[in-house]
Amino acid sequence: MEYLTEIKVRGYHADFYGHVNNARYLEFFEEDRWARLESVIDLRQLAARGYVFLIVNINVNYRKAVPVGETLLVSTVLEKVGVRSSTLKQEIVFKRSREVAADALVTFVIIDTTGKAVPMEGEIRCDIEKLFP
Amino acid sequence: MEYLTEIKVRGYHADFYGHVNNARYLEFFEEDRWARLESVIDLRQLAARGYVFLIVNINVNYRKAVPVGETLLVSTVLEKVGVRSSTLKQEIVFKRSREVAADALVTFVIIDTTGKAVPMEGEIRCDIEKLFP
Amino acid sequence: MEYLTEIKVRGYHADFYGHVNNARYLEFFEEDRWARLESVIDLRQLAARGYVFLIVNINVNYRKAVPVGETLLVSTVLEKVGVRSSTLKQEIVFKRSREVAADALVTFVIIDTTGKAVPMEGEIRCDIEKLFP
Amino acid sequence: MEYLTEIKVRGYHADFYGHVNNARYLEFFEEDRWARLESVIDLRQLAARGYVFLIVNINVNYRKAVPVGETLLVSTVLEKVGVRSSTLKQEIVFKRSREVAADALVTFVIIDTTGKAVPMEGEIRCDIEKLFP
Repeated sequence: MEYLTEIKVRGYHADFYGHVNNARYLEFFEEDRWARLESVIDLRQLAARGYVFLIVNINVNYRKAVPVGETLLVSTVLEKVGVRSSTLKQEIVFKRSREVAADALVTFVIIDTTGKAVPMEGEIRCDIEKLFP
Repeated sequence: MEYLTEIKVRGYHADFYGHVNNARYLEFFEEDRWARLESVIDLRQLAARGYVFLIVNINVNYRKAVPVGETLLVSTVLEKVGVRSSTLKQEIVFKRSREVAADALVTFVIIDTTGKAVPMEGEIRCDIEKLFP
Repeated sequence: MEYLTEIKVRGYHADFYGHVNNARYLEFFEEDRWARLESVIDLRQLAARGYVFLIVNINVNYRKAVPVGETLLVSTVLEKVGVRSSTLKQEIVFKRSREVAADALVTFVIIDTTGKAVPMEGEIRCDIEKLFP
Repeated sequence: MEYLTEIKVRGYHADFYGHVNNARYLEFFEEDRWARLESVIDLRQLAARGYVFLIVNINVNYRKAVPVGETLLVSTVLEKVGVRSSTLKQEIVFKRSREVAADALVTFVIIDTTGKAVPMEGEIRCDIEKLFP
């Protein structure tokens, strides 16, 4: 498993209970997706051509509360390429123990200028498989 | 459907694409859960007794992108009470059209001082059914 | 003093210490500025004409820590109209006691399509004085 | 100037205008303060002894809008040690050009269990000067 993103958990990530807040995890997952995308794809160029990545579902399991001071690692792999959508599997683990703090299935589509989801075939399919091997 | 929470979408809720960011939706859902909880339960008192609400899964569908300037409404109903966990169904709709922007199933447990999830029976089950009728 | 914005402090607003996080206050201040702007000005229309509100300085005093459960009120008045910038005075007070939790001086310019700050005179000066009386 | 913190600007950092939102800068500044603190001080231990860092003023200049895709560096130096408060000078610069995107003066006190600001002398003064040389 390759971890592009390392996050040191700070006071401002935590909530009332002193643990990382549910909404923050989605930022950590997003951080790793962007980290992978940016080396291969210029998002602004993609946007200029009228293509937009759109997340349609996130199914996240919160497995272990993360206190301030911990260091986390995030990973992303391609789980499935469907007809018009694809699904990533993302994990956040404790750096020290590699215990899973949270994992998520993230399903996205790519929409064109008409607002329709494009078929995940040909060049686009190749790009996705390159991005998230 | 009862909507306790009304949110005017601001510039700081949006992201690169000018739409509400994925992570923000979780704050909107959380806002409505707290709005319901606070009228019935004193969370700090609950915490003092050693009980903590812990979310274990969120499964969210992003159905329609929300631009800045829109007004959203959030609702929460009890979907299911299980043996040691319960599931809420939450919806975010456009105030004008009542179209669904996002919906989510949110599964939580209540843990005691030993860190174990307590059975959802007796008084606790009654409380949950009162909170999310 | 007129308070357009009322905020119930939730768990996700707090940080490690159980108090509202410094960065969140800026969102509360921003919320009140937008609440005032939206009734008078269509921001997207303004953006379409090439005008952009740009904040150049925020000087914020954190006067009293705000715990989860409190209700806050936010106010905004025009402090000063300068040659090319204007300054707002914003306050966050506890609803119960009207004690000041934080106050800020917020200085902004309005830039046009050339990226230059426009002089705060004529119609623009009138608009600002109408917005923040 | 030593930059402990490097931040790649992502879509979720930006707002309606496609630039880093004002409130996010405070998180970037906070990130660098924590990065410096953690190597020297155990915050939880400090909290256990009853000492709490409390920010009382932030005066931030937004000098140049930061678009998505840029990489930022953050620095922190000690500006002044006063009788009961100290002031840090923090800067966020573009990694490529070293142009200043934002700078801030951040004034903090250290409060003890009585809630009073402790004098910045003796061991505490030494600690601060070690932390932010």
